[in-house]
Amino acid sequence: MDNPVTRTDSGWRLPAIPNLHSHAFQRAMAGMAERRTDPADSFWTWRETMYRFAERMTPDTMRAVAAQLYVEMLEAGYGSVCEFQYVHHQPDGRPYDDPAEMSLALVEAARDTGIRMTLLPVLYMSGGFDGRPLTDRQARFGHDVDGYLRLLERLRALEDNQLRVGACFHSLRAVPEEAMRLTLQALPADLPVHIHIAEQTAEVEDSLAVRGTRPVQWLYDTFDVDARWALVHATHLTAEETGRIAASGATVVLCPTTEANLGDGLFPLQAYLEAGGRWGIGSDSHISVSPVEELRWLEYGQRLIARRRNIAVGHSESVGETLLHGALEGGVHVTGFSAQETLQTDWIELDPQAPVLVGATADDVVDRWVFSGNQPVVETVCVDGETLVSAGRHRNREAVFSDYRQAINDLTR
Amino acid sequence: MDNPVTRTDSGWRLPAIPNLHSHAFQRAMAGMAERRTDPADSFWTWRETMYRFAERMTPDTMRAVAAQLYVEMLEAGYGSVCEFQYVHHQPDGRPYDDPAEMSLALVEAARDTGIRMTLLPVLYMSGGFDGRPLTDRQARFGHDVDGYLRLLERLRALEDNQLRVGACFHSLRAVPEEAMRLTLQALPADLPVHIHIAEQTAEVEDSLAVRGTRPVQWLYDTFDVDARWALVHATHLTAEETGRIAASGATVVLCPTTEANLGDGLFPLQAYLEAGGRWGIGSDSHISVSPVEELRWLEYGQRLIARRRNIAVGHSESVGETLLHGALEGGVHVTGFSAQETLQTDWIELDPQAPVLVGATADDVVDRWVFSGNQPVVETVCVDGETLVSAGRHRNREAVFSDYRQAINDLTR
Repeated sequence: MDNPVTRTDSGWRLPAIPNLHSHAFQRAMAGMAERRTDPADSFWTWRETMYRFAERMTPDTMRAVAAQLYVEMLEAGYGSVCEFQYVHHQPDGRPYDDPAEMSLALVEAARDTGIRMTLLPVLYMSGGFDGRPLTDRQARFGHDVDGYLRLLERLRALEDNQLRVGACFHSLRAVPEEAMRLTLQALPADLPVHIHIAEQTAEVEDSLAVRGTRPVQWLYDTFDVDARWALVHATHLTAEETGRIAASGATVVLCPTTEANLGDGLFPLQAYLEAGGRWGIGSDSHISVSPVEELRWLEYGQRLIARRRNIAVGHSESVGETLLHGALEGGVHVTGFSAQETLQTDWIELDPQAPVLVGATADDVVDRWVFSGNQPVVETVCVDGETLVSAGRHRNREAVFSDYRQAINDLTR
Repeated sequence: MDNPVTRTDSGWRLPAIPNLHSHAFQRAMAGMAERRTDPADSFWTWRETMYRFAERMTPDTMRAVAAQLYVEMLEAGYGSVCEFQYVHHQPDGRPYDDPAEMSLALVEAARDTGIRMTLLPVLYMSGGFDGRPLTDRQARFGHDVDGYLRLLERLRALEDNQLRVGACFHSLRAVPEEAMRLTLQALPADLPVHIHIAEQTAEVEDSLAVRGTRPVQWLYDTFDVDARWALVHATHLTAEETGRIAASGATVVLCPTTEANLGDGLFPLQAYLEAGGRWGIGSDSHISVSPVEELRWLEYGQRLIARRRNIAVGHSESVGETLLHGALEGGVHVTGFSAQETLQTDWIELDPQAPVLVGATADDVVDRWVFSGNQPVVETVCVDGETLVSAGRHRNREAVFSDYRQAINDLTR
C-alpha cells in the first residue's frame, strides 16, 4: 500500500481504521476500576469489577452501551469493529429464549450506528488450563461445542455487506484442546478465528505448569495457525514465538491503552516488525476510544523501554505512516471483509483547519495526526457509501446518547 | 487538601491544573520529528528539528504560536503555565534592541489569552559539562550572568496578579557552577528556581565523567535545594537521590508525553511517592496538550514496568485523585503564585453530560475524567475571576487561530 492519504477539497482523506478487538459492554465501567482495593492489586482485581458489570447487563443495556461506544468509535476514526462477545446467557446461566439474544443486541447497535461489524461469539468452557468448571460469575459465558456451533450458524445466516461472523476462542485457559479441534473441523476454512493469548505472565506460567509449554508455542505446535487467525495481545513471547507468528501470516491484535491500564507489559514490536509480522489495533476495554492514542502509545511504550526514538519504521521512514499501514493492513486478514470492502470503500477525512494540521503536507499529515492530535480532528466518516459523521458529529448522536444515559441509570442504580 | 471536586449546578468543579513546564515555540513542530533520519535516532536528532524551528522564530511568530498553545491549554483544563524561555536573541546571537523582546512576546500571549504565567527566562552559557562554548545553533540562547540578571530584573518589574517571574538554569550542562552561585546569590530568597536535570542517561554519564558524580547528587551536594526549586524530569535517579529530592521539598516536574516521545525513560514514581515527594506535570514540548493524557500515562508507564495496576495511590485509594492532588499541590511551591491565588481562585468545570461522566459521583468523577476522558470534557475555565472558556471554547479562539495560521505559514514557507 502506498501513502493512503489524499487531499480532497474538504480535507485529508484516508481509509477508516479497523478496530480489531472490542468488548463493548466494558465501556460502561471505563474509569471505575482505578483504585487500589488490595495491596497486590492486579489484572485479577480489575476482572472482579468487569464481572460485576457483566452480571448486570441485559440485552437492552448491552445494545445502548454498544451504540454509544460505536458512535464514539466512528467519531474517532474507526470504521469497523470486531466484537469479541462472551456475555451470552441470562445471569443464572440459562440461555435466553433466543440463545443469540445478546449477540443480536450488538448487531442492532452496529446497524443503528452504521459501523461495520465482525461479530465474534466466544466459546468459553472452563476456568483454567486444568479444565476446572466455570464459576457462578462466569455462568453467562459458557457453551458446549454443539451449542456454540448452533449459535455460530444462526448468526452466520445474518451476514450481509456490513456484518461478518467469525469464530472465537476466549483463550487457551477457557477452551480445551479437543473442543478447539472439533470447532475448527466444523467450520469453513476461510472463517476468521480470534483468541486472547499470552496477555499476562500468569497465563504463561499456568501453561508451562499444566502443558509444559508456553501458550503461543503450544498453539503453533497443535494447530495450523494461518492468516485467518487473530492473536489478541500476544504480549509475552520468546524470540522463537515472535518469529513463528510473523511467519504464519497471523495478525497480532495490540490494544495499547488497555494493555497499559491492565499492566500487561509490552509486546516485542521491533523484532516482530523486522520479521515482517502482521498486526492491527483494538480498543478492547475502551478505557480510551481513540486510534491515535492506541498508535502513539504503542510506539511510546517501545521508546520508553529502548530509550530511543522512532522504533516503528519499515513501511516508510515515518513512524506515523508505518503505524497507520500496520493498523490498516492487519484488519484485512481477520475481519472477514475484503480490502475492497473496507480499505477502498470506508474512509475518514481529517479537518485541514484543525490547529495541529495547519501547514501539513501529504508527507507529514499522518505523523501530525498520530502524534499531536489530542483534540478530535476527524471531520467526516463514510462507511459502505453512507456518511455517518459530518462536522465531527455522528448523525444519530443525540438519540443514541439518550438511550445510553438511561442504560447507565439502570446499570448503576 | 480534601477531595477538591464539588458539584455545582452547571458541572463538576475543580481547581485548574498548573502546567509547570512549557517551551511554547515547540508546539509549532509537534508531530514533525517522528521519522527516522538515521539508524541511531535519539533525543539528539529530535533536538536538530527543534533547533531549526528555534532559528526561525521571530517575536511575532513566538507570540502567535504561544497564544494558540495557551488557548489549547485553557480549553484542556490548565489554568497557568511556567514558560521555560530560552530563545532570547536575534538569529545571529545579537540581542534585540530590547533584550527582553522574545520574553515579552510570551507575556503578551498570556495576557491576550488570560492564562496565568510564571515566566522563567533561561540562563544558558555553555554547550556541555566541559564548559565548551555555545554552537552557532545555540547563538540565540546565551547570556553572561550580568546580562541575565538585568533581563530578570527588567521582567520582574512587569509582575502583576497574573504574571510572576522566576529564575531558571537550562541544565547543569549549560550553566557552570560559579555562574549558578553568582545568580542565586543575587536573587531574592523566595524566587522560584527551575532547572532541567537528569532527563537522559547521556547527561548522567557526562556528569559522572566530568564531575565524578551524578547530576542530582552534585546539585544537592553543591547548593541548598529547597521548596522553591523545580527539578524538571529528574528521570534517572538512584534511590538515594530520590530520597534527597523528596526530603528537600523540591518539586519534580514530570512531562510524561514528552518524556515518552523523546524516549527518556521512566521516573521512579512509586518510591518517590512513598518518600512523600512533591511533583507536578508539564506539557513541555506540547506533543500533546492534555492534562489527562499526562496524568494517565504517568501512571500507565509505571504499570507497564511493574506489571501491576494502581501504582499511584497514597493521597487516597483512588489513583485519579492521588494524581490530581499531586498535580495541583506541586505547583503551589514553584510558580510564585500562592495557593490562594491559584487553587482557590482558578477553576474548571467538567461537563456532567459528557458520555464518560454520565452517572459519575464525587467519589469516581476524577478517576473517570483522568482515565476515560479522551474527548474534551472541560466546559468552563475561570482564571483570576475571568471566564476564559465557555461551552468548551476560549473567548478569543478564532482571532488567536487566525494569527497562528499566519505564523505557521511564515515559519514553514
